[in-house]
Amino acid sequence: MSRTLVLGGARSGKSAHAERLAAQSGKEIVYVATAGAGDTEMAQRIALHRAGRPAGWTTVEEPLALAAVLGQWRAPHRLVLVDCLTLWLTNLLFADGTEYPDVGTIALPRRFHDERAALLAQLEQNHGDVVFVSNEVGMGIVPFGAVTRAFADEAGRLNQAVAAACDNVVFVAAGLPLVLKGAPC
Amino acid sequence: MSRTLVLGGARSGKSAHAERLAAQSGKEIVYVATAGAGDTEMAQRIALHRAGRPAGWTTVEEPLALAAVLGQWRAPHRLVLVDCLTLWLTNLLFADGTEYPDVGTIALPRRFHDERAALLAQLEQNHGDVVFVSNEVGMGIVPFGAVTRAFADEAGRLNQAVAAACDNVVFVAAGLPLVLKGAPC
Amino acid sequence: MSRTLVLGGARSGKSAHAERLAAQSGKEIVYVATAGAGDTEMAQRIALHRAGRPAGWTTVEEPLALAAVLGQWRAPHRLVLVDCLTLWLTNLLFADGTEYPDVGTIALPRRFHDERAALLAQLEQNHGDVVFVSNEVGMGIVPFGAVTRAFADEAGRLNQAVAAACDNVVFVAAGLPLVLKGAPC
Repeated sequence: MSRTLVLGGARSGKSAHAERLAAQSGKEIVYVATAGAGDTEMAQRIALHRAGRPAGWTTVEEPLALAAVLGQWRAPHRLVLVDCLTLWLTNLLFADGTEYPDVGTIALPRRFHDERAALLAQLEQNHGDVVFVSNEVGMGIVPFGAVTRAFADEAGRLNQAVAAACDNVVFVAAGLPLVLKGAPC
Repeated sequence: MSRTLVLGGARSGKSAHAERLAAQSGKEIVYVATAGAGDTEMAQRIALHRAGRPAGWTTVEEPLALAAVLGQWRAPHRLVLVDCLTLWLTNLLFADGTEYPDVGTIALPRRFHDERAALLAQLEQNHGDVVFVSNEVGMGIVPFGAVTRAFADEAGRLNQAVAAACDNVVFVAAGLPLVLKGAPC
Repeated sequence: MSRTLVLGGARSGKSAHAERLAAQSGKEIVYVATAGAGDTEMAQRIALHRAGRPAGWTTVEEPLALAAVLGQWRAPHRLVLVDCLTLWLTNLLFADGTEYPDVGTIALPRRFHDERAALLAQLEQNHGDVVFVSNEVGMGIVPFGAVTRAFADEAGRLNQAVAAACDNVVFVAAGLPLVLKGAPC
């Protein structure tokens, strides 16, 4: 049983890398898509991504209840690939139509805290392999706005927490992996 | 014959690193500048960069037709240094006065697709050493706007494609190189 | 006597990593906070950070005169931890109420140049261990605005200059260190 985090910037090749890891595992693959097809551009991206995945994979779409889906699908003969944690975080921050002020300290939704805790608890259980894809968003200038800053903060904290709970962490740049933790993968 | 990609953030020291690689090669150096001196600030930056380069180097300014310039100058006794791919991409996206809507899916200029394909085809030919400098722009929060997102997407895809075609890829941060592919360089 | 730079994005775990290095040194620790508690959010962040540090550490708050503080506190039996260089740079750019135009070339304050030179001169002296924390801000798309671009430029240049003067440089992502220079730390 292994837990792997594949971290990278936008268009870094992180999804392709994670899909390669999954394909090489020899296990039954469950692909968990956290993207909601909320607009045309996103729907096109999702369709393109899906067309590139092997036909035998099971696709599950779940924008919010990630821990529950992991609990449901993880099994010794399976690898669950989650793409990606950053969209899941975004979905949670804006779940239930939450709106945020432009400045000042903001309160994040209760569901965000609950789902995050449930995910980390799920990672402590060894029910099967899991590979997470996540975005690195903190290495540029953070644009103004309270929710943008909160998003950057929570994305970074989430990456740290998941990385700490994973056996292998790899950073992808220009399609090429750098090992941050564990074995080359 | 070797192809090298030097990738890094803004003010990471990537250009200086690439120039060091070029100087150490012992070959005749052709420096291809993709920057257009469109405004005063850029003109000053270009002049500063130029003043820092060895006197014996040949400088060629080419904002768009990069593959043609590479085809013209590459030779076994030469190293062609291209600084940088990200500005070349920017020039292509805005060539011919292309304007983009603020939202929605946008169509990139035909010339962009043609020049990109020509560059990758040129890289498959082994006519002499080449060193590319390119920006990593995808590790921060991508600001709003359709063309900004398209730029981030294409910059990342270009880095992946060029990295796949190169023998050596190095990531530069704070002036220090991390090897992503091939030998330390 | 060693000089270490811990570089990383926002919420990368760089401060925690630097504090671990300091704690493991066995030396007396002087913590230099460059943040000014200018607004409520920042005051809260500072209080949280301070609560997480060991009780025996001496905290010095200094937003501008960093070289003078280093000169005053560095000693063979001490480690001075500076968190962080990027806030110090920000403080200097806006010291004395400096305002900048939205576009065009901007002149940075004289004090910025003086303090920067004094810091680099201080690093050439071997009076005791020092660990710097600094932000990587150049790996995303740089937002518009003359001062934003100047900030990104100077942050990158500062990281390069300090990295060159340090014995050890480590890049932190998702809480995990990548060695850029020197020994694993």
